[in-house]
Amino acid sequence: MGQDSIDRRDIVLTGDRPTGKLHLGHYVGSIKNRLSLQEQYQTYVMIADTQALSDNFDNPQKIRANIREVCKDYLACGINPAKTTIFLQSRIKELFELTCYYMNLVTISRLERNPTIKAELQMRKFGESIPAGFLCYPVSQAADITIFKATLIPVGNDQLPMIELSNEIVRRFNRTYACDILRESSPVLSNHQRLVGIDGKAKASKSLGNAIFLDDHESVLRDKINAMYTDPNHIKVSDPGRIEGNVVFEYLDVFHNDKEEVENLKQQYTKGGLGDRVLKDLLFGSMNDLLKPIREKRACITDSIVDNVLNDGIEKASLVARKTIQEVRDVIGFQ
Amino acid sequence: MGQDSIDRRDIVLTGDRPTGKLHLGHYVGSIKNRLSLQEQYQTYVMIADTQALSDNFDNPQKIRANIREVCKDYLACGINPAKTTIFLQSRIKELFELTCYYMNLVTISRLERNPTIKAELQMRKFGESIPAGFLCYPVSQAADITIFKATLIPVGNDQLPMIELSNEIVRRFNRTYACDILRESSPVLSNHQRLVGIDGKAKASKSLGNAIFLDDHESVLRDKINAMYTDPNHIKVSDPGRIEGNVVFEYLDVFHNDKEEVENLKQQYTKGGLGDRVLKDLLFGSMNDLLKPIREKRACITDSIVDNVLNDGIEKASLVARKTIQEVRDVIGFQ
Repeated sequence: MGQDSIDRRDIVLTGDRPTGKLHLGHYVGSIKNRLSLQEQYQTYVMIADTQALSDNFDNPQKIRANIREVCKDYLACGINPAKTTIFLQSRIKELFELTCYYMNLVTISRLERNPTIKAELQMRKFGESIPAGFLCYPVSQAADITIFKATLIPVGNDQLPMIELSNEIVRRFNRTYACDILRESSPVLSNHQRLVGIDGKAKASKSLGNAIFLDDHESVLRDKINAMYTDPNHIKVSDPGRIEGNVVFEYLDVFHNDKEEVENLKQQYTKGGLGDRVLKDLLFGSMNDLLKPIREKRACITDSIVDNVLNDGIEKASLVARKTIQEVRDVIGFQ
Repeated sequence: MGQDSIDRRDIVLTGDRPTGKLHLGHYVGSIKNRLSLQEQYQTYVMIADTQALSDNFDNPQKIRANIREVCKDYLACGINPAKTTIFLQSRIKELFELTCYYMNLVTISRLERNPTIKAELQMRKFGESIPAGFLCYPVSQAADITIFKATLIPVGNDQLPMIELSNEIVRRFNRTYACDILRESSPVLSNHQRLVGIDGKAKASKSLGNAIFLDDHESVLRDKINAMYTDPNHIKVSDPGRIEGNVVFEYLDVFHNDKEEVENLKQQYTKGGLGDRVLKDLLFGSMNDLLKPIREKRACITDSIVDNVLNDGIEKASLVARKTIQEVRDVIGFQ
């Protein structure tokens, strides 16, 4: 979305499942984007603990342990509670109710056709044992989006079917109850691609152990950069090296501000005569410039600061949720 | 359940979908049973408006219009708010939350294997378009039962799979969260069979137009008894008549207190020499003895009486529901 299309009535909703601390993949893929969105729009950021339960119901400790961590990551990165309402999903009770109403408006086969769910089911190896809550979590996402009348949803390409489904529910609801209280939403596609893991094999993720966390100590950052996959055939400094698949260059593209310098380094590396050490030192400098203030700010954020932020956010979000659910009950006729 | 097995710690939960006024089929099949249960146990009777929405989402007016009617039927029959907590399902918000948690503990294929749901799906002709809310309503029933820690559920045979599923969820929940806060429940099978409709074709039901309502005027009662299916080959009084499939005798069996007299009449009818008129007059007398006080009491129950009863019931039910959901949140770790 360019500056020219800003509509002040637009409302942004986004969030994360609190199943681990946030890493650079999150920063590049979503948080950076949220920092600019919060300057332009009313923004809600949801810590999706209820949703996380849909595939972690037998491990709620993991969710509980990460709620404050994720909130600290947000605050350290500059998500500003004065501009963004940060809240905990499970504390907005109206979401459960709205989810149950929406369940009547969507068919099982429609949920089974959802390509995102199909891919996730395969990944999670549920086989024939698909929890109802997992198949239906896109319905609860529709409740998340619509209860706040959010119109702009920052997503990756893989999440587009979720917004489609949410809009289908909105249209069906408004048509069924002859009203216009629910609003459709549009995706805001992130400018950045997914960040590759330091092993170069897949996107950075906690479970693959190939991610750099926002609170990684400087020495850990240096170790992870040192461990980055480059070009295994680039043995001597004088050897010509490959750029493609070289994680150090992928990260320089993202994190080094002087793009011209990166281009020159790529040419030099391709010809030969440039060692990985120089590049990794450069990358460390750039990344540490970004991460140091985040790391330092994060260290000062106490649990009580986090709890205050969340409680404020929950209060604000509840007000809106209560208003919407009242409208919903009115049109259904459930007083 | 005989008197000898009464355990005062047992709790009864039952209810009806408010999709029409109650008729004699309900009285015989469930309400009569509730009158004795409320003398023995703590009893909850739920007007299941949320559940009714699962196959009436496009016609909520029907639900709204029948909530007070059903409650009036209860009170007129002698369900006593001092002994029985009568409440409206949609007003117990904790049920939505508990339903959402339980959805994670049951698989889609388990829900699809439920024989009751299979039969209902066929009846409702959903085809491939099964609303998620409909397939999952047994999960919401498990929430209804367990939030009140109900242990005795009065049901027909066709509802036994619902209790099985609820108990599966209870065991899975208690095992998953290493607790024993949820209680399993047992069916209380009704002593009476289903009441046949006045046309003799199927069970009495509003949609088939073959039911006698609890508030039917005396003249309507007489008309419906006159219209009852008897033996089409019993033309002259002197003709021998058939008892089997004869609705008047089926109703006399249920509603005429002097069982010996009914046996004598059956013998006389089979031999010939007994006219339908005499039998129908006798049945009218017996049925009117039952229905007149119900009808008269019902006429005196104002909307405001109903609203007070429901509000009191909702308040009592809410207290219990809030306590249970707090226990549930505690073991999940969702404060």
